[in-house]
Amino acid sequence: MENIKAYIQEHKDRFINELIELLKMPSVSANPAFSLDIINTAAAVKASLEKAGCDFVEICDTPGNPIVYGEKIIDPNLPTILVYGHYDVQPADPIELWTSPPFEPVIKKTETHPDGAIFARGSCDDKGQMYMHVKALEYMIQSNTLPCNVKFMIEGEEEIGSKSLSWFVERNQEKLKNDVILISDTGMISNQQPSITTGLRGLSYVEVEVTGPNRDLHSGLYGGAVANPINILAKMIASLHDENNHINIPGFYDNVAELSLEERAEMAKAPFNLDNYKKALDLNDIYGEKGYNTNERNSIRPTLDVNGIWGGYTGEGAKTVIASKAFAKISMRLVPNQDWEQITELFTKHFISIAPAGVTVKVKPHHGGQGYVTPTDSIGYKAANMAYTETFGVPAIPVRSGGSIPIVALFEKELKSKTILMGFGLDSDAIHSPNEHFGIFNYLKGIETIPLFYKYFVELSK
Amino acid sequence: MENIKAYIQEHKDRFINELIELLKMPSVSANPAFSLDIINTAAAVKASLEKAGCDFVEICDTPGNPIVYGEKIIDPNLPTILVYGHYDVQPADPIELWTSPPFEPVIKKTETHPDGAIFARGSCDDKGQMYMHVKALEYMIQSNTLPCNVKFMIEGEEEIGSKSLSWFVERNQEKLKNDVILISDTGMISNQQPSITTGLRGLSYVEVEVTGPNRDLHSGLYGGAVANPINILAKMIASLHDENNHINIPGFYDNVAELSLEERAEMAKAPFNLDNYKKALDLNDIYGEKGYNTNERNSIRPTLDVNGIWGGYTGEGAKTVIASKAFAKISMRLVPNQDWEQITELFTKHFISIAPAGVTVKVKPHHGGQGYVTPTDSIGYKAANMAYTETFGVPAIPVRSGGSIPIVALFEKELKSKTILMGFGLDSDAIHSPNEHFGIFNYLKGIETIPLFYKYFVELSK
Repeated sequence: MENIKAYIQEHKDRFINELIELLKMPSVSANPAFSLDIINTAAAVKASLEKAGCDFVEICDTPGNPIVYGEKIIDPNLPTILVYGHYDVQPADPIELWTSPPFEPVIKKTETHPDGAIFARGSCDDKGQMYMHVKALEYMIQSNTLPCNVKFMIEGEEEIGSKSLSWFVERNQEKLKNDVILISDTGMISNQQPSITTGLRGLSYVEVEVTGPNRDLHSGLYGGAVANPINILAKMIASLHDENNHINIPGFYDNVAELSLEERAEMAKAPFNLDNYKKALDLNDIYGEKGYNTNERNSIRPTLDVNGIWGGYTGEGAKTVIASKAFAKISMRLVPNQDWEQITELFTKHFISIAPAGVTVKVKPHHGGQGYVTPTDSIGYKAANMAYTETFGVPAIPVRSGGSIPIVALFEKELKSKTILMGFGLDSDAIHSPNEHFGIFNYLKGIETIPLFYKYFVELSK
Repeated sequence: MENIKAYIQEHKDRFINELIELLKMPSVSANPAFSLDIINTAAAVKASLEKAGCDFVEICDTPGNPIVYGEKIIDPNLPTILVYGHYDVQPADPIELWTSPPFEPVIKKTETHPDGAIFARGSCDDKGQMYMHVKALEYMIQSNTLPCNVKFMIEGEEEIGSKSLSWFVERNQEKLKNDVILISDTGMISNQQPSITTGLRGLSYVEVEVTGPNRDLHSGLYGGAVANPINILAKMIASLHDENNHINIPGFYDNVAELSLEERAEMAKAPFNLDNYKKALDLNDIYGEKGYNTNERNSIRPTLDVNGIWGGYTGEGAKTVIASKAFAKISMRLVPNQDWEQITELFTKHFISIAPAGVTVKVKPHHGGQGYVTPTDSIGYKAANMAYTETFGVPAIPVRSGGSIPIVALFEKELKSKTILMGFGLDSDAIHSPNEHFGIFNYLKGIETIPLFYKYFVELSK
């Protein structure tokens, strides 16, 4: 497919600049302060789909952030590919750790990205990877090589649980009808070794509040005589893991799908260097559940992490106070067969049950989603693998990811079709962290590889 | 002493308004943003001492906030009383919990204060109680009844550890020479039952920092595979108390002065109603060290409380992140014979020793001070008791306070004189909390009682 390479060469500066414009919009879904930016970003995505060649595009209202829907139907008898992506991004804080402003994209060369990478919140997750599909469509339209129908569904709440998307999908099954769902919102092993994500973890995200005295108290006059909500919260959080780092919530592991030794051996074949892993994170050692290695701990095993904690005096200097309340945001990553709503209930019941007298505890579920595993013998998987093999020169390796795209399970349930996760980002791209970036190589390689997926998917579907 | 009653009646509106002006100044010592207000407040205190009748007043520079020194020497052969107080205040946050702005004083009636109380940060701790002494001096000068020499030392770093005060006291022992030190920076049992604080707890205040990975990480891709600094901090904090709420730091209790059963029985005579205590704080139960009751837990026993904790995402909504760092401010209240510097060392050594592989820990000492116990057979104690007995109609009860005024121990060491703690605030005055207030009754009663202390102290000294 020399034409696509030539087309990318000719247009790559424009491809990059268009993405940079999109990255300038702070479409943070977690914070209502950015709701206007959300609207503007949705409008920009709509315009880009029209420009690329969709013959119908609309911004669909939802109870939350709008969803951009677009389509190019060339022949009802041909297969239909549904492309999913999201235009919302994670909050940028801690801002002070960014080496350049999160919403002022700049291109910098890195060791991993000698051709340069675009540094901006959302560059990899997911604006950059989503936009690869828009540009791939542009090429197929311009070169008259679009081999099937395509539908786009780009949402604005992925980073906060995709509530409105479920609402939308349940109400638009006919409109969204497709033969395969294609998503680029995951990573690959390296720029030399593509991989296809065959499993995702589910998620249960809750916020807890521990209340002690009805007002902040002087720690001298009351210290030692009343339950300190921060000390208690720490005790409660600590008790959620045992000495082997198993999660201490009754029933938590009941439905966990255990992998066979063969499957674990297969997984272990993926290239991984523990020393480099520790070095990249400046860790003197790793940490985690006894009996599993690093790649298992963050993919096939459920986890519980505190994502945020706050209470009392956090300003400069010292304040001798006992806070009235302490808070924490806690998320659990789940594996296939764990139901997120049931896990949320188990957590809530357990967490309230371990609160000592002297405090009251509230648990507020934020959102969640089911885990997912995709078969490697499907037409979609094979087409993706053929596409990667052609552009990278080596076949893709199937990997289980620790991340969550809760709606993948929803798609299978509501739309009855399989999802193929063709990720082009790297673990080192710092998604959800300061200095998120996306390699120019990866961006352009994605645009080059996607049309091949279309080609082989249609061929294999015949 | 009818004249003082009449004088107070005649001038009470001015007394209240002068204090209100002082309370409008946000002299928060913990936050450098208020350093100009600190300077202005010191100047206002200087002016008030001059106006009251000191014949020498100066603002003394220190390595930190200035100290206001004033004196009225009537006869070198007469006893000298050194009045100590502080013009700095605690931070006002959480601001949103104040029913009126912390630095816009208003008078409101409460159940405890039917004559009204002044609501403002610092109204009780310590501007209001310090200013009682200024007004008492004014009366004694105006009525020509000042029976001895008086010196004032009003500092601006009490809420952050009085570092500069120690520096100042060590360098000015001759200037500060006195026969007794008089401080109103504590409370009393009730408006019907005065009490004299005979013991104070020491303090060690530290800040801890737990660092895991060198950047914030995606909790899906890394969750379960690396040590989460917040989970680890919670585990470490939880381990600082055992199941009986004894503090789990090796050597922590080695020098704790245990009270005899007789002394504990004596303490138990102070009026205390557990139901009212719980009701006032909306607590379903109390909490604390096994084997001790509430009044013992917050006075004769050392304690460890987290005063603040923060890490990760604390904004609105959800962010699936593993923070690179987690922080906590931790303070320990100490009892007589525990050396705060040694305890700070023990804590630091222990806290670092319990850090698991996968994180690094830093401990930064903020400040501290020694505990203190004063005898009840001293001239100063007797004079204070006689003064209370005359103005309240009942003798004062000696009580051990849980709070800390670290410099009291320093005074004894450097100036070789005893400190008398004549407090006029109430536990319910919410010092260090939102809606701090000081009863008008208490303010005026203090002004009425203080000159009697002077009178009896001089008489008993003959």
